[in-house]
Amino acid sequence: MSSYFAEIPPVRFEGPESKNPLAFRWYDKDRVVLGRRMEDHLRFAVCYWHNFVWPGNDPFGGATFERPWFQGGDPLAMAKHKAREAFDFFSRLGVPYYCFHDRDVAPEGATPRESLALFQAMTDELAAQQARTGVKLLWGTANLFSHRRFMSGAASNPDPEIFAMAATQVKAAMDATLALGGENYVLWGGREGYETLLNTDVGREMDQLGRFLNMVVDYKHRIGFKGTILIEPKPREPSRHQYDFDVATVYGFLMRYGLESEVKVNIEANHATLSGHSFEHEIAMAQALGIFGSIDMNRGDPLLGWDTDQFPNNIADTAIAMYHILQGGGFTTGGLNFDAKVRRQSIDAADLFHAHIGGMDVSARALLIAERMIQDGAMKAELDTRYAGWGSELGMGILGGTLKLEDLSARVLTQNRDVAPVSGRQEFLENLANRYC
Amino acid sequence: MSSYFAEIPPVRFEGPESKNPLAFRWYDKDRVVLGRRMEDHLRFAVCYWHNFVWPGNDPFGGATFERPWFQGGDPLAMAKHKAREAFDFFSRLGVPYYCFHDRDVAPEGATPRESLALFQAMTDELAAQQARTGVKLLWGTANLFSHRRFMSGAASNPDPEIFAMAATQVKAAMDATLALGGENYVLWGGREGYETLLNTDVGREMDQLGRFLNMVVDYKHRIGFKGTILIEPKPREPSRHQYDFDVATVYGFLMRYGLESEVKVNIEANHATLSGHSFEHEIAMAQALGIFGSIDMNRGDPLLGWDTDQFPNNIADTAIAMYHILQGGGFTTGGLNFDAKVRRQSIDAADLFHAHIGGMDVSARALLIAERMIQDGAMKAELDTRYAGWGSELGMGILGGTLKLEDLSARVLTQNRDVAPVSGRQEFLENLANRYC
Amino acid sequence: MSSYFAEIPPVRFEGPESKNPLAFRWYDKDRVVLGRRMEDHLRFAVCYWHNFVWPGNDPFGGATFERPWFQGGDPLAMAKHKAREAFDFFSRLGVPYYCFHDRDVAPEGATPRESLALFQAMTDELAAQQARTGVKLLWGTANLFSHRRFMSGAASNPDPEIFAMAATQVKAAMDATLALGGENYVLWGGREGYETLLNTDVGREMDQLGRFLNMVVDYKHRIGFKGTILIEPKPREPSRHQYDFDVATVYGFLMRYGLESEVKVNIEANHATLSGHSFEHEIAMAQALGIFGSIDMNRGDPLLGWDTDQFPNNIADTAIAMYHILQGGGFTTGGLNFDAKVRRQSIDAADLFHAHIGGMDVSARALLIAERMIQDGAMKAELDTRYAGWGSELGMGILGGTLKLEDLSARVLTQNRDVAPVSGRQEFLENLANRYC
Amino acid sequence: MSSYFAEIPPVRFEGPESKNPLAFRWYDKDRVVLGRRMEDHLRFAVCYWHNFVWPGNDPFGGATFERPWFQGGDPLAMAKHKAREAFDFFSRLGVPYYCFHDRDVAPEGATPRESLALFQAMTDELAAQQARTGVKLLWGTANLFSHRRFMSGAASNPDPEIFAMAATQVKAAMDATLALGGENYVLWGGREGYETLLNTDVGREMDQLGRFLNMVVDYKHRIGFKGTILIEPKPREPSRHQYDFDVATVYGFLMRYGLESEVKVNIEANHATLSGHSFEHEIAMAQALGIFGSIDMNRGDPLLGWDTDQFPNNIADTAIAMYHILQGGGFTTGGLNFDAKVRRQSIDAADLFHAHIGGMDVSARALLIAERMIQDGAMKAELDTRYAGWGSELGMGILGGTLKLEDLSARVLTQNRDVAPVSGRQEFLENLANRYC
Repeated sequence: MSSYFAEIPPVRFEGPESKNPLAFRWYDKDRVVLGRRMEDHLRFAVCYWHNFVWPGNDPFGGATFERPWFQGGDPLAMAKHKAREAFDFFSRLGVPYYCFHDRDVAPEGATPRESLALFQAMTDELAAQQARTGVKLLWGTANLFSHRRFMSGAASNPDPEIFAMAATQVKAAMDATLALGGENYVLWGGREGYETLLNTDVGREMDQLGRFLNMVVDYKHRIGFKGTILIEPKPREPSRHQYDFDVATVYGFLMRYGLESEVKVNIEANHATLSGHSFEHEIAMAQALGIFGSIDMNRGDPLLGWDTDQFPNNIADTAIAMYHILQGGGFTTGGLNFDAKVRRQSIDAADLFHAHIGGMDVSARALLIAERMIQDGAMKAELDTRYAGWGSELGMGILGGTLKLEDLSARVLTQNRDVAPVSGRQEFLENLANRYC
Repeated sequence: MSSYFAEIPPVRFEGPESKNPLAFRWYDKDRVVLGRRMEDHLRFAVCYWHNFVWPGNDPFGGATFERPWFQGGDPLAMAKHKAREAFDFFSRLGVPYYCFHDRDVAPEGATPRESLALFQAMTDELAAQQARTGVKLLWGTANLFSHRRFMSGAASNPDPEIFAMAATQVKAAMDATLALGGENYVLWGGREGYETLLNTDVGREMDQLGRFLNMVVDYKHRIGFKGTILIEPKPREPSRHQYDFDVATVYGFLMRYGLESEVKVNIEANHATLSGHSFEHEIAMAQALGIFGSIDMNRGDPLLGWDTDQFPNNIADTAIAMYHILQGGGFTTGGLNFDAKVRRQSIDAADLFHAHIGGMDVSARALLIAERMIQDGAMKAELDTRYAGWGSELGMGILGGTLKLEDLSARVLTQNRDVAPVSGRQEFLENLANRYC
Repeated sequence: MSSYFAEIPPVRFEGPESKNPLAFRWYDKDRVVLGRRMEDHLRFAVCYWHNFVWPGNDPFGGATFERPWFQGGDPLAMAKHKAREAFDFFSRLGVPYYCFHDRDVAPEGATPRESLALFQAMTDELAAQQARTGVKLLWGTANLFSHRRFMSGAASNPDPEIFAMAATQVKAAMDATLALGGENYVLWGGREGYETLLNTDVGREMDQLGRFLNMVVDYKHRIGFKGTILIEPKPREPSRHQYDFDVATVYGFLMRYGLESEVKVNIEANHATLSGHSFEHEIAMAQALGIFGSIDMNRGDPLLGWDTDQFPNNIADTAIAMYHILQGGGFTTGGLNFDAKVRRQSIDAADLFHAHIGGMDVSARALLIAERMIQDGAMKAELDTRYAGWGSELGMGILGGTLKLEDLSARVLTQNRDVAPVSGRQEFLENLANRYC
Repeated sequence: MSSYFAEIPPVRFEGPESKNPLAFRWYDKDRVVLGRRMEDHLRFAVCYWHNFVWPGNDPFGGATFERPWFQGGDPLAMAKHKAREAFDFFSRLGVPYYCFHDRDVAPEGATPRESLALFQAMTDELAAQQARTGVKLLWGTANLFSHRRFMSGAASNPDPEIFAMAATQVKAAMDATLALGGENYVLWGGREGYETLLNTDVGREMDQLGRFLNMVVDYKHRIGFKGTILIEPKPREPSRHQYDFDVATVYGFLMRYGLESEVKVNIEANHATLSGHSFEHEIAMAQALGIFGSIDMNRGDPLLGWDTDQFPNNIADTAIAMYHILQGGGFTTGGLNFDAKVRRQSIDAADLFHAHIGGMDVSARALLIAERMIQDGAMKAELDTRYAGWGSELGMGILGGTLKLEDLSARVLTQNRDVAPVSGRQEFLENLANRYC
């Protein structure tokens, strides 16, 4: 079988001194880090859409990529061609997982039944490819944002018939995810938001969304899907406002609709920065709120106001994110997906490899730095010292609820002296963190 | 008694044709709008801090305002001088309400007891001024962000002794608010956040904040304060991250700590834009979530990344905000505070009047536009039409919970046809909204 | 001839009280404003691309508009169909001008010669449509950003063969603009910038751009084109950085390559805000630097980080921009183009009318407000007073160059007293500006 | 002589393995890098203002630092105390340079003459401290933004008397810089901009600024100052708009007023990001335009919209900046100033050391990475390959001016074939850059 990637040999670990741009310098999948193989820690996934579906267009320009599977012809045959090439890529790269939307892998048909049949045919093809290569499914999802019927939302659409269309796709995508052994199911609501409040009733639309998510969770249990349901927050784009703005907003939404123990979040670095947060903030917040699930490890450009979906390349930034993930116990069903795309000028087959190798190496290097941070323990010790006062009688009395506002006031007025602040030592800590790089 | 404002006559309504810059052109307090006097709709408040405490400094420059009460001398005497001038200003302007922080009105003493005594003395002075002028207290609050002891947070501080200091101030401020007949009590957590995650445990700090707020609510009930407790969201500044990021975040926080029926939000226009939201978004979101309380009607500059706290001057923007407020039923205990400051180049006494007159006139004009929008009904009718499908059997079956995911899928596959989207008509609606201006 | 817009009657002025959404309420083309007909002041143009070429896609979704001329078939026949509909739209709307890119009006052929032939055929068709309808060409331009050959720039491309391809298109587009009586020729360099400095030599690329622009100016003179050459600044998008960042940057560029008296700017409101400037700032700056040419009157959304290209709808903001345009003498060859698009949810033919009617009415209303500002004179009088000191002997000595640094120092040390600042009166001026609304 | 820093021993290089937080791990001043000592490459300077003048206040809070020289008492005595401590800090840290504003080192007097006398007294004191310690002056500057008289600008003020006050300060600061052997003189126009166009004539104000800068250059030559005059660009803050927006804007300004061969730029990393540019962009642009002078190596926080002035801590980002500086030939009279401040929570004397040690180590490490990039040559080779076509006959014909627009068109139509684009290889290059880290 000829392959688009035939000239790229399987990517191997060659160590930091290698000058081979098509080798890993840091990602050594069997190396044990804090008691776990690197591969099992990082749980890398490659996404189908950016690599095999996106033609390189942007709002001001057309396709730049000339992949053989874009050439036209019978849509199902092209979809199968694409699937073979995709799994060939996953295999040569050596990642354990991939992710997909229903419409990435199968064309849309002329009617709902045709669309379903095409998707089911491709589900069988994916199963065969998984079996052939050993690559597994990290998560499946449904594309409820590209077709014009969803232009005003899917579950939050003003028309319940479109809600039903969305439900149909999600049911099928969940069925496929279950059939393919997927470990999670993701919902990203790119059109679940609004363009203008002039035509929008936000309370009503959030109720629709809450109902939809309850249906999904209910169905999951009914079919025996053991994976995790994940919401992927994003503040905007394509919508002007998206209801799943950030981790804290999703948490409030889950509480409102009684789903906080059923659903977790898939946090994307680029979405974090678009919402005004650092990636590590969103990770730490999700862990604090008990809803950390999985990550999309793709950076934005802080000087650009849209989703650039670039591969991570900053070692220090990635290390801090990895440190927070490890501090929270690492991944369970989740993993590290690259929801990232090569620049539209990176038109060669090799560019797809450079991008993923770079992203995997940066992540692996970040893991090793985080390992040193944890083994050394100095960063955690600083934090423990800083909050030590909360283990005192006063601290426990406050948090335990035995002390009232007026008790504290009485105490202060009795002591009748000020309390001296202590240094936050931020620069010391920044230097300390750099020491592990 | 000589006054800093002696040369400014009381501000009167003179109608749209007036060219007197010290008259109202639109704010006619007794005019009835939708069955309520303008004054009762708008419930204007002037803030103490920007007008009477801030000396005109900014991060790159010192004081520019040369108010008589900044001249130095005995702090309590100066505080009384300032209070007289402030109430003189409120009276000449003709606003029904004012707002203050504890440290705005009284100097900090050398010890907690001295601080409390000074504050209590000034509470008496404020009571006397209220009685003299008829101006009422919209809300009181405690300044837990300016003193260096709060540099690392108040309730979220790593040191419980500082939590206790904060509790002492809040208790006293709540007592004063009760004594002065205040209609709300506000908490803005300017330092309840972090500068770097390297020295911060966000889960622990949110628990501290949750405990603090529960103490406040508990105390409110114990002392019989009937006003509303309000949290004022802001995403950042001075903190890099503030826990009360926006309305949706505060909602999740209240749910987490069991306070969603006890606490509402005070929404500031400038804070909304800093968090990436429009002002009307935050209002609509709070109404949808049942936590709308009060507003700070001061705009930011969308091209600047910090709190500029400018007076509203855009009629169309203000009208949309007012429309949402009225659609949600208007204010109950809340009101419309100007948490706004004149530019530091606006150094004359008259500038304080120009600023407030402009803000009040814009708000009044916005109220009249919103009245027309409501009386005409076309905007609401468009919205009703857009969501009409949700009143169908299908819509009610979805929201009522009788239909499952697979029921909807079965329905779609049976019908086996696509659903056509309908125009969102945004430009039509924008033109319609402009018609009322 | 059947028309897509057949059901929309020609748009007429009906006055502010009209409730007809397909009539002008403010744009009364023959009304005389400051001695000039409204139509001659505003010089409205409709753009070809957003209205007749863009299918409603965005980065996350496909086409939403189902225009008859998108149906496929012979490209040239479709282009002619599109042209007929476009001119039908211009006529029904009643605008005097339109604008186009070469690739908007004609399909690209298989070879450069075919492309040229197709474009020339369509130039003839446009000429016929202009003659039929009386609609004129405000400006022409070449699309040097959509085709994949320009993915790394046109004139700034690392490959001079692509520079030559760009030159070929620009020559043809200038020839067509001349033939069609176009009043300006525009260059927008959407790909004249970079994605990463790692593969870019900015000095070299700016020299290429400078050379290209000199070629264009030289050619203009050689063919006797009397219109104005305009550069349209934009800071980024699609490029991460675009060399024509803003008006001040373009000015420096023109100075560097000796073109400051040959080339002016076409300022777009949305591009201004993306670069961190207000629209009126860019207008005022261009006027101060002597390079003001024309405008694209389409707003962005200050909370979004990309080009939303929305129709203007804020009366006060538009009025200030119009005031600055009039203060600078108004348009000469330039005009007011709507480089604006309906939202992708606005899928009906009527939505194109609502959008333009709204934009034209807001602009007309802004013109009337600006007229009042100028006739009243109070705003200008305030400015004259503020700078009056520069008419003094000291002021003239400084600006005239007779006084040196040490002369001023000697003067200050001799006088030996401080200088008191005076109020900037910003709030007074904001209220004053609102008085004209 | 007792010192605030007495407990901190002089900072020494101990190598990467050192765990001593008060030692350098990378900055080894005598190590030779590309033929030059590290100290001579980096030319580190410490700024006076953030470290010795700023009390830790921010817009929402007061002083947090309790330095002995803030205690009050005779202002000149306090200024001398501060100077001794400052030079003690510079010495213990081991930097070769410092920088100051006139008002940092000397208090303002009651009259211009008193202010001058105080400043001259402190100039003598600084000379003595320089002689005592061997620390040199990288640049001097005048503070024309903090005093209320400059609230509406210094050289761009509406009042020429304030222009004269500014001239007086600048003359004295230039005299002092000359006397102290300063190697550059800097102008940062924090108030040379506007708050609102309603009270501003930008053309007039730019002419005032151009005249001022010509006076400064003229005076420089007259007194025989051999250093470089530097403008420091910043887009805004404290002003809403600052005329020296970014490097490209300053270039246009210098061209307009005939100063492009007399004045260079001092580029600050934080100011770059506030203007929407990366630090390396501003460096590369200044080098391309021939106006690169010096740098302020202090980062902002890309998620915050104001100047945070933090010490650099990201190794990869700093390395790229350093690579561009070295590619352009490195510093001549310029240097690397830390216009950076410790966080206001970092209240200990040691925090000032941690901050500078971290910043110096990151910069030194960046220098070593940049050295490897240059010695390896692969990055430059990629660039050379990419632009190789411009060395062809076609490329030289275009840039040399022998080919006209129509020549290029004729060539393309004759060849009559498309040109294939080549990959931009961004991800490959990002991986390559990371290889040197």
